[in-house]
Amino acid sequence: MARPSSLSGFPEWLPSGQVVEQLVVDTARRVFELHGFAPLETRSVEPLEQMLRKGEIDKEVYLLRRLHAAEGEPDPGLGLHFDLTVPFARYVLENAGHLEFPYRRYQIQKVWRGERPQEGRFREFTQADIDVVGRDTLAFHHEVEMAVVMASVLAELPIPPAVIQVNNRKLAEGFYRGVGADDPAAVLRAVDKLDKLGRARVAALLTDEVGLTQPAAQRCLDLAAIRTPDSSFAREVRALGVVDPLLEEGIAELAAVVDGANAQRTGSVVADLRIARGLDYYTGTVYETQLVGYESVGSISSGGRYDSLASDGRQSYPGVGISLGVTRLVSILLGRDLVDVSRTVPSVVLVAVVGDDTRADSEQVAARLRIRGIPCEVAPGADKFGKQIKHADRRGIPYVWFPDPAGDTVKDIRSGEQVSADADTWSPHVTELRPAVTSTLSQPTLSQEARP
Amino acid sequence: MARPSSLSGFPEWLPSGQVVEQLVVDTARRVFELHGFAPLETRSVEPLEQMLRKGEIDKEVYLLRRLHAAEGEPDPGLGLHFDLTVPFARYVLENAGHLEFPYRRYQIQKVWRGERPQEGRFREFTQADIDVVGRDTLAFHHEVEMAVVMASVLAELPIPPAVIQVNNRKLAEGFYRGVGADDPAAVLRAVDKLDKLGRARVAALLTDEVGLTQPAAQRCLDLAAIRTPDSSFAREVRALGVVDPLLEEGIAELAAVVDGANAQRTGSVVADLRIARGLDYYTGTVYETQLVGYESVGSISSGGRYDSLASDGRQSYPGVGISLGVTRLVSILLGRDLVDVSRTVPSVVLVAVVGDDTRADSEQVAARLRIRGIPCEVAPGADKFGKQIKHADRRGIPYVWFPDPAGDTVKDIRSGEQVSADADTWSPHVTELRPAVTSTLSQPTLSQEARP
Repeated sequence: MARPSSLSGFPEWLPSGQVVEQLVVDTARRVFELHGFAPLETRSVEPLEQMLRKGEIDKEVYLLRRLHAAEGEPDPGLGLHFDLTVPFARYVLENAGHLEFPYRRYQIQKVWRGERPQEGRFREFTQADIDVVGRDTLAFHHEVEMAVVMASVLAELPIPPAVIQVNNRKLAEGFYRGVGADDPAAVLRAVDKLDKLGRARVAALLTDEVGLTQPAAQRCLDLAAIRTPDSSFAREVRALGVVDPLLEEGIAELAAVVDGANAQRTGSVVADLRIARGLDYYTGTVYETQLVGYESVGSISSGGRYDSLASDGRQSYPGVGISLGVTRLVSILLGRDLVDVSRTVPSVVLVAVVGDDTRADSEQVAARLRIRGIPCEVAPGADKFGKQIKHADRRGIPYVWFPDPAGDTVKDIRSGEQVSADADTWSPHVTELRPAVTSTLSQPTLSQEARP
Repeated sequence: MARPSSLSGFPEWLPSGQVVEQLVVDTARRVFELHGFAPLETRSVEPLEQMLRKGEIDKEVYLLRRLHAAEGEPDPGLGLHFDLTVPFARYVLENAGHLEFPYRRYQIQKVWRGERPQEGRFREFTQADIDVVGRDTLAFHHEVEMAVVMASVLAELPIPPAVIQVNNRKLAEGFYRGVGADDPAAVLRAVDKLDKLGRARVAALLTDEVGLTQPAAQRCLDLAAIRTPDSSFAREVRALGVVDPLLEEGIAELAAVVDGANAQRTGSVVADLRIARGLDYYTGTVYETQLVGYESVGSISSGGRYDSLASDGRQSYPGVGISLGVTRLVSILLGRDLVDVSRTVPSVVLVAVVGDDTRADSEQVAARLRIRGIPCEVAPGADKFGKQIKHADRRGIPYVWFPDPAGDTVKDIRSGEQVSADADTWSPHVTELRPAVTSTLSQPTLSQEARP
């Protein structure tokens, strides 16, 4: 279903893939709005110094310049944003006087990174983010809420099972301090490479470069190996014999997130102490999300708590957020043939045209259907009915309407059944009003049997 | 309501403005889908040579380069697209084997132009386009359809009256030939400057630079002065005494668009023979749209018929399209205070928190409301009820829900009325489910009287 893009890293989908991406975006938006997140769209560009303030990502920014910039015209110093968190933080600082806190927003936009493209990694891609920021303080329960809202989105999508893996920066930092690390951030960066380098090479990093003792390095790696579906991780952490007050605070927070989220959405969240997240602005809970069976493609939803991303010196705006990687998720669904699409157009009805002089009659039928919210289109020409039916069939449009002064009829071209119909009262089944996207993994047996 | 952006030409709206923009985009999308246009999103970048192939716009493109491009790394030659028509044409050529023709798509995306910003003119802005393209041929009736669909969008928006002004390139070109012009395109470009330069200076252009005789130039200007609400323009054109077969073809097409569109949407379209459109790929009908009373801001919806924008040498893909300038329209609505917004958040209910230990009860109420599609949020903390009500009031949330083991109640904080309620059955009025955007120009008197 996916077609290789002619510009590597800048994916584009065929019409069926467009329907899949739209479903993902619409589902995310609907769930976000049900939870009271307000829409936000920021500009696509940020001043370069704004983007370089945080994180390690400066290598990957695309800069802009005007094609016909005048001789000596100063470089505007603008780049395309590489995520939605930095622009959001900047928006909050600029507009704080006009916002109500805690400010809850969602933001669904493209972001750009000049990375080397590979599976699941693009130069242009769409993210769907939610964040909550407070002024000066932000209640901890929002760290539970982020996991619950994202789990609700994932549960509504026709995708393989997804598991949100949660860790906590305080837990990790406290533990690293407790084993004697001078630079906990350096330990975190090494542990973050476990997937790429494996345990032995990270152990070497920890002793040779970060300066840990061999036993300390082993305990850090033992910590990273802990993964539990509930708060039982706490016992396993304590069994490693490290004592630190920040560690205890982190254990309590992580337990609250895992148990709190699973109480609202059973099995949606696990504690996974390997999760590090590269960006260094996180200060508490961190999230990543695996699609079960497709772990190698990477996380499809990530985020965390940040206490000092947005601060103007006088006031700080602590926040927590989580982001759905729309393009990565869609690329898996299309590339692995995990979904079927019922049709590639919104129209559920094609209104046939009987003769070149009666096109207006067909337009009137269409107008009457549209008034009642039924998407439809009028056939492009007064071709033979067989050709008009084929026109509908090739697009997956299930119904063809035949205007007739003696009484209109509508034909279900899947079953061949044709019945009398009035454009002011007839409706398709409510599930047919929009294109359906269904998982190829879990076709319910009953509806398969029910098909002709 | 609008706040000046800190980056000139890159507008961003406050939360109320976000709601307005979302309404415009959602309305356009809904009407487009009701008419059977399928969603399309293309990448934001195009190879530069693709963009320079057409039109006069090359001065205004933003080019990309990686911040840390390696020494000697070849320039990728990529720019941000400046409209959605050129990327669409490229997509059709690349994917023609996978598309069904006529292919109807809508596309709502940002575009970028390195122009000098001024009122209604931005460096980054959102457009909402529809196009229909055929393979080798495209029926004329789609030129009527474009005007009807856009008029349907505009009629549903809380905006001042809008008038779609239509002209026809064949009519203009045939007329210019008929008065003896060697280069009809040069005449068109001069006439396109009428708004900017005025009649006298364009007359001078036409004689001194384009080489027309004085009487020929006068007749071209007389042609541009014709504007009629119906096909009576034809009589006025013919009264100018110019004879040309292409002119007659153009007159017939323009009459068919104006009368055809007005038959479906009374008063939506006028014939305006001044409309030229700068881009030279148009070959038939051209559209511009004025917001009555705000003409100086420029056209809010433009487009036209193009026969040779997309061609791969073997096959051509003639098309017709029209584009809504979302950002320009929203900037007028916000900048001139033409709309009111009922609330800045999706939540119609704030669920109060009675005590720190009963937050889970409030979350459960919220979950039960959400299952039935009622957007809501839980208060951030167990503050005094007065403070929680103020929290709702500041966001425009009309209802506050009080969980109570003895029986929940819900309060309409506008009227103060508080009633018993069950989270499995209570609903707000259906018109309250989403934030309302209403015109400040046409507040219906009745609903004002009905307010407390």
